[in-house]
This record gives sequence, structure tokens and C-alpha cells, in this order.
Amino acid sequence: MSRPVITLTTDYGPASEHVGALHVALAAAAPDADRIDLAHDIAPGEIRWGAIVLARLVAMLPAAVHLAVVDPGVGGRRRAVAVATTSGGYLVGPDNGLLGLVSGIVGAVELQVPNDVPATFHGRDVFAPAAARLANGTPLHEVGVPIERARLVCPPMALVEARPGYLASEVALWDRFGNVQLLATGRELDAAFAFGDRVAIGTTPAVYAETFGDVDPGKVIIHTDSHGHVAIAVNRGDAVGLLGLRCGSRVEISG
Amino acid sequence: MSRPVITLTTDYGPASEHVGALHVALAAAAPDADRIDLAHDIAPGEIRWGAIVLARLVAMLPAAVHLAVVDPGVGGRRRAVAVATTSGGYLVGPDNGLLGLVSGIVGAVELQVPNDVPATFHGRDVFAPAAARLANGTPLHEVGVPIERARLVCPPMALVEARPGYLASEVALWDRFGNVQLLATGRELDAAFAFGDRVAIGTTPAVYAETFGDVDPGKVIIHTDSHGHVAIAVNRGDAVGLLGLRCGSRVEISG
Amino acid sequence: MSRPVITLTTDYGPASEHVGALHVALAAAAPDADRIDLAHDIAPGEIRWGAIVLARLVAMLPAAVHLAVVDPGVGGRRRAVAVATTSGGYLVGPDNGLLGLVSGIVGAVELQVPNDVPATFHGRDVFAPAAARLANGTPLHEVGVPIERARLVCPPMALVEARPGYLASEVALWDRFGNVQLLATGRELDAAFAFGDRVAIGTTPAVYAETFGDVDPGKVIIHTDSHGHVAIAVNRGDAVGLLGLRCGSRVEISG
Repeated sequence: MSRPVITLTTDYGPASEHVGALHVALAAAAPDADRIDLAHDIAPGEIRWGAIVLARLVAMLPAAVHLAVVDPGVGGRRRAVAVATTSGGYLVGPDNGLLGLVSGIVGAVELQVPNDVPATFHGRDVFAPAAARLANGTPLHEVGVPIERARLVCPPMALVEARPGYLASEVALWDRFGNVQLLATGRELDAAFAFGDRVAIGTTPAVYAETFGDVDPGKVIIHTDSHGHVAIAVNRGDAVGLLGLRCGSRVEISG
Repeated sequence: MSRPVITLTTDYGPASEHVGALHVALAAAAPDADRIDLAHDIAPGEIRWGAIVLARLVAMLPAAVHLAVVDPGVGGRRRAVAVATTSGGYLVGPDNGLLGLVSGIVGAVELQVPNDVPATFHGRDVFAPAAARLANGTPLHEVGVPIERARLVCPPMALVEARPGYLASEVALWDRFGNVQLLATGRELDAAFAFGDRVAIGTTPAVYAETFGDVDPGKVIIHTDSHGHVAIAVNRGDAVGLLGLRCGSRVEISG
Repeated sequence: MSRPVITLTTDYGPASEHVGALHVALAAAAPDADRIDLAHDIAPGEIRWGAIVLARLVAMLPAAVHLAVVDPGVGGRRRAVAVATTSGGYLVGPDNGLLGLVSGIVGAVELQVPNDVPATFHGRDVFAPAAARLANGTPLHEVGVPIERARLVCPPMALVEARPGYLASEVALWDRFGNVQLLATGRELDAAFAFGDRVAIGTTPAVYAETFGDVDPGKVIIHTDSHGHVAIAVNRGDAVGLLGLRCGSRVEISG
């Protein structure tokens, strides 16, 4: 039998001591689990960014315990939760929208925050212990207080406008290469434009293409990325910098 | 029986090839060990920062082999050591202050540096091999030359001044969120101020509160953080940038 | 028997979701393997940098499956390959020069790219599945289509000029400390200068020394680093910034 798996997704920053503290807490309480870092470079406090990344990585390995912490309201009123999914996996984290894009929730408990833990590190003191117990086989209803209706908070997902020759959407996230991912999907892109179209992002010319090498270095492409979202990229360049984008920026693409 | 655990703490930078080289050296020599990255984003050469982070993470999982390298004097006169602790664990690293805040040292050896290793990568060539041997069960006294009195170098820990209405301390470290940790502890904070007090950090107004959400976005709080230290934070902002701090900066808080 | 080992080397950025996706793909398909991150901070798209780092880390643990992705031409014409080495290990990645510095290739296959995978994430969709299969014991010839002659693309390795009193070479890479590694080796350094010589890098004075502490803080040393390459470092400083270098910059050292 394979060892249990616990994944970690946070905005704590790569190889920070906060990430180390989660690993140590998990290793101490669930020493046989395989711990997998999904991402720790989520932009600080960006719940929607974290929710999108979490949902698509969870879909690749659903039957694991997924610990996720992007928690700008730590110590405030948001609930701390653990939920079970139809795939036999679990999610553990703040109920602030971060878990809200994973589908197939079949049960949820609210985690109790002991009175004697600090208000600022629930990742280490509340979420990691719960994740370790679930990985060790403790049933969900023993980890917290059952919530009658397992309806989790959704992250803010702005509407996409797509019509022939026009697409408007918000920046969801980007990566180290400066590739920008919009909330819009490839289907919405295809409702607006045809493959090969020359378009404009604001006033910047771009081409609807398939991959970076389809345009000259420094030129902009719009494409459907490997996650099915509309993405903006610059061949060997940085689309975030070139277009002056921020997380949540509204992007308008016209034909 | 659980597998042996080796932790890694360095200033090598997240996911750098130097970190990779430690992992490979450990995996080659102790293939069954569970390797845990505690932190690799210690500010370059900041021994005190590393010492503080190491001591508190070691306390969470004491009975492991803890490999630590923040070593600006590599190749110079500082000793290379391995020490045993009362908890059944080991520390391996340079004796330059980095290991000096872990308590309960019960034995120490000096590691011999082979003549044929380069002067600049003792992490890979001296410390990792010793850590792997300890993880494999080799007794401490076979890993190096016993040091008669196991007194390790202490990192520089500047005095804290705390009196009613006034607290002065140095910046120990910060994190990705721009939260600043001082050397002063919560007890010293409480000797100076009462919870809820409005104070000034230099000329910047702040409130002694519990968590980030207790103030409006952009406002400053002072609090006792999850490690028991005095911390300065800006709700959804960056205290390091706002206050213009550096590692080792002296911070004065007045009532 | 020890578990199989899969290493990961990419330019995806530390703790990014792309790295997480590789880990999840590997954990799902080869749950018993030990996954080791070699480096993920290769400068984006810098194939030669990645090739150098990969070759020396592979040499430390040859009998593993080494997954490597620095792939600016993803989705273009470069081949996707898996190769076996004389040490009993495997390399999996794009045949764009990244794998070209590892010696002892004894067989190679071209990986087929399914028609239904996106053009931009072969790491997750092509290379990780092949690496997982090799780790699980699938023979190389079942993972792809044999290539008759296993000649991989070499990365561009510029010539070094070394004569008594003069050394010119290109910047290969650097690390977080600002230590610069040139393509030139220690042997070429010794053909140009004697240990202890005072030299000039362009117009900046430097000393041929052994380790950082051999010069005052802020001063520059040239030395043979722990990988056998010529390196430029500033004691407690940043040689990249001080000398205004870029990846591929030509550096001239004169006596």
C-alpha cells in the first residue's frame, strides 16, 4: 500500500521558514506521509490566485490531503475548515474562498482554534495538525465540528465579456516567465476570435497563436494555455511588464 | 520504525543548485532518510537570522539530524562541527553562531576537512556527508574529533531596552509579507506597553494589537508573533519597506 | 532495496505551480519514487546554464531518472527525448542542448507528443509521464521511438582564451550570493595566472585567491570554485552587480 500524501499550497514564499514549519509539523505528526509542495509563490494574500492553482493541481491527484493557506484574514472571523471530496481526498484551510473552486465536496467540519495558539499562524497550529490527522486515517468528523451544509465561500470570479471581435477579462495570475493567465477560457476566446487573428490588447498588437515560437522574439501572443485559460505571453519576454499588468487588472482584447 | 529525518537550513536561496547538491549528497549517502527543507531564504550571510529560525524549527522536531549552513567564513578559521542534543538529535554545521541558540548540547565533535575538497562548498563536501552518516546511525564520536567542552559560538544578540512607555530592539529577520521580527519578546513588549496602546515606531503611528485585521489596510500593528517575538506588521502591506528597515536595524517604539 | 529516485531541474521558478504540477504528475504515476529538486532557479530559458547545473548534479547521483526542462522552444521543432546512460540512469527532457553535457549516453528514444496535449507544458504532459514510467521500471525502448544514433544537441559553449597574463571567457551562471561562474576551468586560470596574482577584471582590481575571506569585505577574488570552474566573487558582496554582468557576458581578466 502506498503511503498517504499531503500536499501544501501557500503564499508563504519559496523555502521560507513558514513553509518549513508546516513540513516539520506534518513530519512530526504524520511521519510516513509523502509531502508534496504544490506552490508557495502565490502572490501574498491573493486568495483567487491560490484557489485557481489549488483546484487544478488537486484535480491531478484528488485522493490526497490538500493543505492550503492563503489567509490574509488569519485570526479574524473566517472559518477554519476541513472538507472531504467525492474523490476520497480532503482539503484543509481557511474558508475564505481559497477552497471554493474544488468541486465534489461531500462533507465539512469546522476546525476549533485552541485558545492558547497565536492569532497569526493557523497554518502551523490549526491546519497542519488537522491535515496530519486526516493523513493518519482519523475520520473527518473527529477532526472538527460538522457543518450542516457544506457550502464553502467562493473566491471573487469576475465576469468575462466575450463577443465576436471583443474579449474582456481579469488577470488571474502569472508565472515567472511573465506569462499572464486571464479568468477567461479558451472557449470564450474562440467565441471572440479565430485562430491566427491579429488583435490588440489595449493598443499592443498581438496574434492568436499556439505557442511562443509562433511569433518573433519580443512579440505578443494570445493563446489557450495548458490549463484551458486564455493566456498572454511574449516570446522570450515578459508580458506582465510589457503590458503593465497587476493581479486583477482588466484586460480588453479587440479585433 | 520510522525512517530517519534530516532537515536542511541554509542561505543558499530557494531551489538553487546549491540546495540541490545537498539533497543529492544526502540522497546518495542516506537514501532512506526523509529530507525536510526548513528554510533556504535566510538573508545571505545573516548568521543570527539563521540561528533564530533554526532553533525554533529544531524545537518542533528535535530528534532529527539538522544540517545548517549559513557560512560567510567558509574556508576560514571557524570550526566545522557536529553536536548531539539531549533530545536525541544532532546539529551539523559551521561553529560561527548558527547553532548557538539550540539548547541542550551534550556532546560535540569537530569535523575534519579533507585536504582535497574545495574551500567554498563545505555544505556539500563536509557537512552533508557527516549528516548522512549520523542519519545512518554512525555514532557521533566516529564522525569527528571530540571537542572537550561542547561550548558553541553564540550569535550576536543585541540587548533589548524595555521600560514603561519605551522599547528598543534590533530587527532579527522578516518574511515575504514584510512582517518584521525584533529580538525583543512579548514579555518585554508587555513591560513597555499595554494591549491596545497607540504607540509610535520612530514617527510612524502603530497600535499594539493581536492580528493584522485589527487595523485598517495600510496601518501598522505591533504584536507578539507566533514565535513569541515582538513583530511589526502592516495590514495587507509591507512593514520592511514602509519603515525602511534592514537586518540589524535598531527600532525604537515609544508610547 | 531502495526506492527509485527521480530528480527535477527546471527554469520554472522556486515553488511555482509548474514545479508543483511536475511533482503531482510524478507522485500520481510513480508514488514510491523519491523526488529530488536539483534546481528550479535556472535563469528563464538559459539552456546552457541548465545544462551545466544538470551535468554536475547528475554526476553526483548518476543512477537515477533525471527530468530536466529548460525549454524556450516548447511546442516547436526540437525533439522530446529520453536517454540512458552508462551509469544505469536516465535523462528525460527537450533535445535542445539541455542534456548535452552529460556524458556516457548509450541509447535514446524520441518521445511522442500526443495530439491532444497543449503546446506549452510538455514538462507535465510529456516528460514527467516518461520519467515516471522509467522510474517504475519500464524499459527505455517502450517509452519512445528509438533514435538510431544517440547524438544529442550540445549547448553553445564559447571558446576560452587563456595565455600567460590573460584570460577571456563567458559568464555561464551565477548564484544568490552574486558569485559568477565562467565557462573557463581552473586549469585555464592556472595557464594564465599564478595563485596570489593581482589582476584586473576589465578595470576592477582583483586577487587570485582561495576563498572569500582572503580579501577584505567588498574586494574581488578570482578562484577555482567547488565545481572546477573559474569564479568571480566579492567578499560579502555581489560580483554580478559590481561588474554589471549578464548571462553570456564576455569577461576579460588581465595581469
